[in-house]
Amino acid sequence: MLVIMKNDATQEQIDNVIREITDAGYRGIPIPGDHRTAVCIVGNQGMVEESPFLALEGVKEVLRVTKPYKLVSHETCPKPTVIRLGEVEIGNGCKPVIIAGPCSVESEEQTLRIARQVKEGGAKLFRGGAFKPRTSPYSFQGLGKAGLKILEKVRSETGLLIVTEATDSENLKLVEASTDIIQIGARNMQNYSLLRRAGQTKKPVILKRGLSATIEELLMAAEYIIAEGNTQVILCERGIRTFSDNTRFTLDLSAILSVKALSHLPIIVDPSHAAGRRDYVIPLSRAAIATGADGLIVEVHSDPPSALSDGAQSLYPEQFCQLVKEVEYLNMLGVEKCLK
Amino acid sequence: MLVIMKNDATQEQIDNVIREITDAGYRGIPIPGDHRTAVCIVGNQGMVEESPFLALEGVKEVLRVTKPYKLVSHETCPKPTVIRLGEVEIGNGCKPVIIAGPCSVESEEQTLRIARQVKEGGAKLFRGGAFKPRTSPYSFQGLGKAGLKILEKVRSETGLLIVTEATDSENLKLVEASTDIIQIGARNMQNYSLLRRAGQTKKPVILKRGLSATIEELLMAAEYIIAEGNTQVILCERGIRTFSDNTRFTLDLSAILSVKALSHLPIIVDPSHAAGRRDYVIPLSRAAIATGADGLIVEVHSDPPSALSDGAQSLYPEQFCQLVKEVEYLNMLGVEKCLK
Amino acid sequence: MLVIMKNDATQEQIDNVIREITDAGYRGIPIPGDHRTAVCIVGNQGMVEESPFLALEGVKEVLRVTKPYKLVSHETCPKPTVIRLGEVEIGNGCKPVIIAGPCSVESEEQTLRIARQVKEGGAKLFRGGAFKPRTSPYSFQGLGKAGLKILEKVRSETGLLIVTEATDSENLKLVEASTDIIQIGARNMQNYSLLRRAGQTKKPVILKRGLSATIEELLMAAEYIIAEGNTQVILCERGIRTFSDNTRFTLDLSAILSVKALSHLPIIVDPSHAAGRRDYVIPLSRAAIATGADGLIVEVHSDPPSALSDGAQSLYPEQFCQLVKEVEYLNMLGVEKCLK
Amino acid sequence: MLVIMKNDATQEQIDNVIREITDAGYRGIPIPGDHRTAVCIVGNQGMVEESPFLALEGVKEVLRVTKPYKLVSHETCPKPTVIRLGEVEIGNGCKPVIIAGPCSVESEEQTLRIARQVKEGGAKLFRGGAFKPRTSPYSFQGLGKAGLKILEKVRSETGLLIVTEATDSENLKLVEASTDIIQIGARNMQNYSLLRRAGQTKKPVILKRGLSATIEELLMAAEYIIAEGNTQVILCERGIRTFSDNTRFTLDLSAILSVKALSHLPIIVDPSHAAGRRDYVIPLSRAAIATGADGLIVEVHSDPPSALSDGAQSLYPEQFCQLVKEVEYLNMLGVEKCLK
Repeated sequence: MLVIMKNDATQEQIDNVIREITDAGYRGIPIPGDHRTAVCIVGNQGMVEESPFLALEGVKEVLRVTKPYKLVSHETCPKPTVIRLGEVEIGNGCKPVIIAGPCSVESEEQTLRIARQVKEGGAKLFRGGAFKPRTSPYSFQGLGKAGLKILEKVRSETGLLIVTEATDSENLKLVEASTDIIQIGARNMQNYSLLRRAGQTKKPVILKRGLSATIEELLMAAEYIIAEGNTQVILCERGIRTFSDNTRFTLDLSAILSVKALSHLPIIVDPSHAAGRRDYVIPLSRAAIATGADGLIVEVHSDPPSALSDGAQSLYPEQFCQLVKEVEYLNMLGVEKCLK
Repeated sequence: MLVIMKNDATQEQIDNVIREITDAGYRGIPIPGDHRTAVCIVGNQGMVEESPFLALEGVKEVLRVTKPYKLVSHETCPKPTVIRLGEVEIGNGCKPVIIAGPCSVESEEQTLRIARQVKEGGAKLFRGGAFKPRTSPYSFQGLGKAGLKILEKVRSETGLLIVTEATDSENLKLVEASTDIIQIGARNMQNYSLLRRAGQTKKPVILKRGLSATIEELLMAAEYIIAEGNTQVILCERGIRTFSDNTRFTLDLSAILSVKALSHLPIIVDPSHAAGRRDYVIPLSRAAIATGADGLIVEVHSDPPSALSDGAQSLYPEQFCQLVKEVEYLNMLGVEKCLK
Repeated sequence: MLVIMKNDATQEQIDNVIREITDAGYRGIPIPGDHRTAVCIVGNQGMVEESPFLALEGVKEVLRVTKPYKLVSHETCPKPTVIRLGEVEIGNGCKPVIIAGPCSVESEEQTLRIARQVKEGGAKLFRGGAFKPRTSPYSFQGLGKAGLKILEKVRSETGLLIVTEATDSENLKLVEASTDIIQIGARNMQNYSLLRRAGQTKKPVILKRGLSATIEELLMAAEYIIAEGNTQVILCERGIRTFSDNTRFTLDLSAILSVKALSHLPIIVDPSHAAGRRDYVIPLSRAAIATGADGLIVEVHSDPPSALSDGAQSLYPEQFCQLVKEVEYLNMLGVEKCLK
Repeated sequence: MLVIMKNDATQEQIDNVIREITDAGYRGIPIPGDHRTAVCIVGNQGMVEESPFLALEGVKEVLRVTKPYKLVSHETCPKPTVIRLGEVEIGNGCKPVIIAGPCSVESEEQTLRIARQVKEGGAKLFRGGAFKPRTSPYSFQGLGKAGLKILEKVRSETGLLIVTEATDSENLKLVEASTDIIQIGARNMQNYSLLRRAGQTKKPVILKRGLSATIEELLMAAEYIIAEGNTQVILCERGIRTFSDNTRFTLDLSAILSVKALSHLPIIVDPSHAAGRRDYVIPLSRAAIATGADGLIVEVHSDPPSALSDGAQSLYPEQFCQLVKEVEYLNMLGVEKCLK
């Protein structure tokens, strides 16, 4: 960390900054410039709180040099994490995983029908929400426990692995018992109680990037999970909130590259929520794979117009088959292997 | 709601849209234009889900006309809500309330000292965090239950009312028992389990706007609380995330005006978190009051450089006195009364 | 356009709105709802100014139904535009064009060297700035006319076609005479004088999306050019400004899909300016092509560390060869043909 | 500037960075940390281009310490700039200036009527556009030269000083001859040809902040004008583009504080364009003055519903009188003097 002093900072103020750095257990090295002095903090393991130094007299600003995350970092753990679930592997250049299913579990019949369709299409994992976080209290909130039972039936009847969302500590307990992968949604990315609780489970966690989270914040949220002992975290880019109104959220594919540059964790992409419209899902899926994503999570419904949620962005089963075919083409080409 | 058909939509597709509208329990009125047809949905009470219609063949887009919120709305409840706590009143042009205190409860001594200082300065409510949501798992996370005990002592020794944050359903139970107003932080604005649980308490709730929440989403979050039976909700603007990097968040004072135009709920402003730096807090506080805010929540610390969190944005006690004086000047002038 | 009346609007106010609509030359059809009335405007050709209606008494809001652009629209001109320059074709599923070269023309030697390298790599068009818009007045501003001379030499010696930027009406005259395609930069996307002037030339124009321009604004800017008579416009996505700080700008690949859904114009992608770092350029280029872009414009330099501008994001010549190879792979696969 | 090396950078790479720094005319001081080395660049006057260093092998990132602007900076010129026009003074805690008038000059009669009304209300300067930058080529584009003639008549008949916009170098010549203050609009904030040309005039310039410009970019744009010799620059905050859709743009009042912290230039606020709706203009004006703005520029129309542009956000003359009265109240109180 670098503490930049004001142009007119006194020697006394500079000395005071160095003293405070020493008191905090680090070393402060003054670097005199032509106009002002900067004091470099060295000797720290992990993050230094910038706030106390910013508050000292004569300080103009504080620049962070060391990143605040540790366990998620390439520098701590250079080997890429691969999540293994039966024959499925996620991460590190493995064949991209495709997770598919409806936004919500609506009924046993609907759920099983879609599950069979996406399995036929080539999916290995099935997604479906039993606990739904909805903007309006008057919207359909999911079937809850009954939804989890249906998902268990999907697993036993089709062999598909299950991904479903937990939205609080109570339902996380239930979800943990029923699912193969626990999903934490974008709106809960900084729900630290939930992150900690997810870190205490033994199931892999898909952690979605918050609507306005930086990559650093996404990694710090993952750090919460790993710090509790669960290292099986899969990050997920699902679009960020910007001024641009042609899609519901702006899909930030560079997030894949930044996560891979900084961290050993796998990252998948959810084109459905980003786009908010069905006809963008296939091309954005291709783009995600071409950028190097470790997988996709997409919404599929056997009858989108009748879906209780997210119908407009759900693929028809035949579109999902097309998507899988195109991803496999890209894969055969080894395009995704070109990434270092 | 208005369903806009594509230019080349067939009559059959239009008829199908009208049929689906009828099936959903509304009426669909076709409006033929020169180039395309729009179908207007009438007969709805409250929000209509747009997703099913967007998913129909021949539909170009769906425009919402009716707002999705109800209980928070001026149209449902034209009388402004006033929150009463002893002699303090919040809302509807009452004298702006000032809530002050440290970011975190650090120790009994520190907390009591600051509490006496802000009381002397003119605060009626004391803020201080016992459960702290922090970006890093390695940052100070608050004293928890011990912090709540200290806050109770502040109340009994100074007579100040207490505002403190709950971050999950478990600590909400504890917070509810100790505090006068429950705070829900920006990162939890769409933590629907927490909102529902807060709606089941009898204590007023300060609900902070999420980092990237629209006014509509803020109102919908309040709707969750009110729908559970707790009508005592105070909204709080605390800055939104934008590209602009001169402050930590961009304080959006127009939020005050939009909330007052749409809702009967009071709204206060937190200039400390928005600015992230102490020297901006007083002018932004003046601006908030001049815009018509029902109050302020500001961070004050007796020794900001030693604060365990948010020191750089905490006012010194003498600056807080200055702030109160300036707000009272503005108030005497009756500037805030000019708002309709 | 739909004029939404307030809940308590009087019949007189509604009648007045209808009268104003009639006076403006359209027809106003009232649609009574359960709570409020909306008035639909029909009979308009092209855009209706919403401002006059928004200003009338009793009006709550105005919703636009018809898009404000015309000549750029699919609905006006359903056939995709293809730009033809010698043997190069841009648009409508033709083989993606690759435009490459340094940010700035620095010297004849440097420029010719890079030109030969990118030609060898497979580029058909050469980019290089003679007039550089720079954030700082103290940064290198380009060689001006001398730079254009060098670019002409590049054309005559290598046969590459030339793309270079015009930043005002004066240098546009010079650029027009020297170049094959005129580039208008992101910061000038709403420089209407320049757009009109570009519309009066006979050369194709690459129009870059502004840092914070919506797709509608981008199309309206193109409309300015076409309205003057020049129909040869190529749009370019180059990243938008968001809160996300892991890249210089957030590349919005959904822009490709939205432009293709609304307009007949080709759209290319500039991954170099979006990313701001070299190692992201190849994967983002793949993503752009996989999404359906009609081409790429990338920065290449024979010696990036010595570049006078944008060195950090310029590819080495051998990386450019790799990029071309990968784009051709994607192309062979016909992935981009999957787009409808 | 600080060049941060990668964890695994070799000594050779560090030496090479230091050599490149020396070659560029500065001094490079290596600061070895526990995990990595940083190299501090000292000895520079003004900005150092970061790009060449970022491009070197072994470099992880480059942190800028020195700001890139010079002439606009407090550090270069500690005395606040005051613009003087007859008896009007703008800047440095002088009585806030109020500039008022219609968006567009529509006719002599309309313009003179509004001019008399705003004069009576208390305005000293009159605004009105003769050259209008409009998003659509089909919208009213202003009266051009004829508009300037009308503005000259306003000056001679009412004694009001004139502010009007120039949009390119050609009309800047005309505007310069007719106006007292030249306005450069938000969409032209980085039109460097126009900035340079404005820097060559003798008239004060109001420079509006771009829709997505940082404070640093705004100051750099002003630097372009001052670098040409014209030191009379007034900055203007007019709202920035964010995701928030309750106003047209999000008014960022902290910009006032940041400009005053970094620069000696005055800054005024345009609440009309930010809000996009009339009923927000007075409270946001109060907020701007309470924050410490040096003035306001507001849209006023004698008959807003008939305005050819921006009618919805134009004040009625009686509202303008109210605004002036409220600003004077705030001023009498000396609230704005509380700013340091």
